[in-house]
Amino acid sequence: MGGDLKAKFLEVYSVLKSELLNDSAFEFTDDSRQWVERMLDYNVPGGKLNRGLSVIDSYKLLKGQELDDDEIFLSSALGWCIEWLQAYFLVLDDIMDGSHTRRGQPCWFRVPKVGMIAVNDGILLRNHIPRILKNHFRQKPYYVDLLDLFNEVEFQTACGQMIDLITTLVGEKDLSKYSLPIHRRIVQYKTAYYSFYLPVACALLMAGEDLEKHTNVKDILIEMGTYFQVQDDYLDCFGAPEVIGKIGTDIEDFKCSWLVVKALELSNEEQKKFLYENYGKEDPASVAKVKELYNTLKLEDVFAEYESKSYEKLINFIEAHPSTSVQAVLKSFLGKIYKRQK
Amino acid sequence: MGGDLKAKFLEVYSVLKSELLNDSAFEFTDDSRQWVERMLDYNVPGGKLNRGLSVIDSYKLLKGQELDDDEIFLSSALGWCIEWLQAYFLVLDDIMDGSHTRRGQPCWFRVPKVGMIAVNDGILLRNHIPRILKNHFRQKPYYVDLLDLFNEVEFQTACGQMIDLITTLVGEKDLSKYSLPIHRRIVQYKTAYYSFYLPVACALLMAGEDLEKHTNVKDILIEMGTYFQVQDDYLDCFGAPEVIGKIGTDIEDFKCSWLVVKALELSNEEQKKFLYENYGKEDPASVAKVKELYNTLKLEDVFAEYESKSYEKLINFIEAHPSTSVQAVLKSFLGKIYKRQK
Repeated sequence: MGGDLKAKFLEVYSVLKSELLNDSAFEFTDDSRQWVERMLDYNVPGGKLNRGLSVIDSYKLLKGQELDDDEIFLSSALGWCIEWLQAYFLVLDDIMDGSHTRRGQPCWFRVPKVGMIAVNDGILLRNHIPRILKNHFRQKPYYVDLLDLFNEVEFQTACGQMIDLITTLVGEKDLSKYSLPIHRRIVQYKTAYYSFYLPVACALLMAGEDLEKHTNVKDILIEMGTYFQVQDDYLDCFGAPEVIGKIGTDIEDFKCSWLVVKALELSNEEQKKFLYENYGKEDPASVAKVKELYNTLKLEDVFAEYESKSYEKLINFIEAHPSTSVQAVLKSFLGKIYKRQK
Repeated sequence: MGGDLKAKFLEVYSVLKSELLNDSAFEFTDDSRQWVERMLDYNVPGGKLNRGLSVIDSYKLLKGQELDDDEIFLSSALGWCIEWLQAYFLVLDDIMDGSHTRRGQPCWFRVPKVGMIAVNDGILLRNHIPRILKNHFRQKPYYVDLLDLFNEVEFQTACGQMIDLITTLVGEKDLSKYSLPIHRRIVQYKTAYYSFYLPVACALLMAGEDLEKHTNVKDILIEMGTYFQVQDDYLDCFGAPEVIGKIGTDIEDFKCSWLVVKALELSNEEQKKFLYENYGKEDPASVAKVKELYNTLKLEDVFAEYESKSYEKLINFIEAHPSTSVQAVLKSFLGKIYKRQK
């Protein structure tokens, strides 16, 4: 059933792509149509698609019964808009970070002949979202709310990316800027809004709900997204590489990780000095020293404590919600991430 | 009077900026608020502001009488949205082109400590537009049309930029890709929509007009924008550097200029070969040879002919329009650019 849904979801991708490649607002040349098709196939559908698929799941739970074909198509289209948004962020983030690989292949801007054209490709990906929305939702009563929603969430993500970039400014390597509140703010804006709130907000709009009346749902999802990113930071260091599918390099990369801000908080003066000396260095000896300190500070226990506290808090919030179908949506999200190993 | 309007326009910039720096959708840190303010002041208000100011002018002509303070503010806000859009394109274009200066100062990404953060700053500029629109137009009956308009025009501009980038691909230097139809398509999408159509479309929406009923206005403005860019290409080579304020380098830069596509069209086989050998070379001797060919082909005369034909065609189109106030708007645009020397 999950596989079936994913297959249907991927079919919708083909439909949306074909519409975009024949958009009457632009006169494509053969070269440019080929370019866009290759760019889309390279960057949009290759991820885990969790964000996109969760729109369909959420809408189904809100509706409380099976969806008809039209509803599957529309919720899939909104799901793809989130995947397009993600692709846009990733293409540009990789340029800004000077990254090399993404989803097991070279970053788009590293592909021969692409280079800096990738900046404009990122912009194109972003511009495809309102085209998809206009093609399929222009006549819906919630069309303007959908536009406002995507605009606001994109704005918040770009703001989160900004504080991340200026806080963790390469070359400055100033650990004194890192703290739990700044970590929280980066995570909340850069990740939680678009990964957790946006899919559910899309489903709520499709279900005819007024988002203004669901600020508590937003708060819960932002909290969950924050918890998700803390897990990510934790797994980067303590996860099994063969399970998470990569070897974490947050320590080498001087990342503003939950682990380092927690370590700073728990360190005495001597340990702090030790962290300042070893964090963000390439050589394996320094990395090992940082991990040693993480062990001394018992960060694995601190994380386990954080995890169970977060879960408890979230469950309490969720069960206080008046609607059982909204509860079902939120519990489904939580169930997918609680104690995840990858 | 013109100076007075510009002063009022700049006051609106200060108001909009201050709203953006206190946007409740994001919790600014002091550092990030300062960053955005500096970034805006560096990139948004330093141009000629023609596009922005023309929204106010156009709206005044459509209304047929003086504007009240509220109308001046709102038409200025829309004008600033276009300036923000322009700033967003320029910040990112300069990165893609590896440019050095813009408006007499270093390109934003060349400013110390900015670097690739400029990519995200470009995105932020783009995201400010829907924030401004939401702050001031959310309750207007034409709000959704305004969102659709900005989305469509941005999409067209990004598509124009794409065909420009893939046609004039650095490193390939393939003149055989250059032709009048491709030049026209690049210019129309990359420049004409946002520089000519967008300001008037904003004014029409404010005046309560339905854009669907004004496709002829769009066609005329796109034609005018194309003519404007052809002038730009012409002046790059034949304009007086002390008047246009820069020394043109389109020939060295292998630009898909109207002059080179016209030269290709008018050349015999021998002259074509000569162009292929000398176009896009840095050395002054090659540049001089290209200019010599332009003279041999009498491109100055060809341009003068193109200019008067365009003018005649545009005037005829304009005078066929049923509304005298719309005619006034279009003639005002045409008057500003016809036979311009800079």
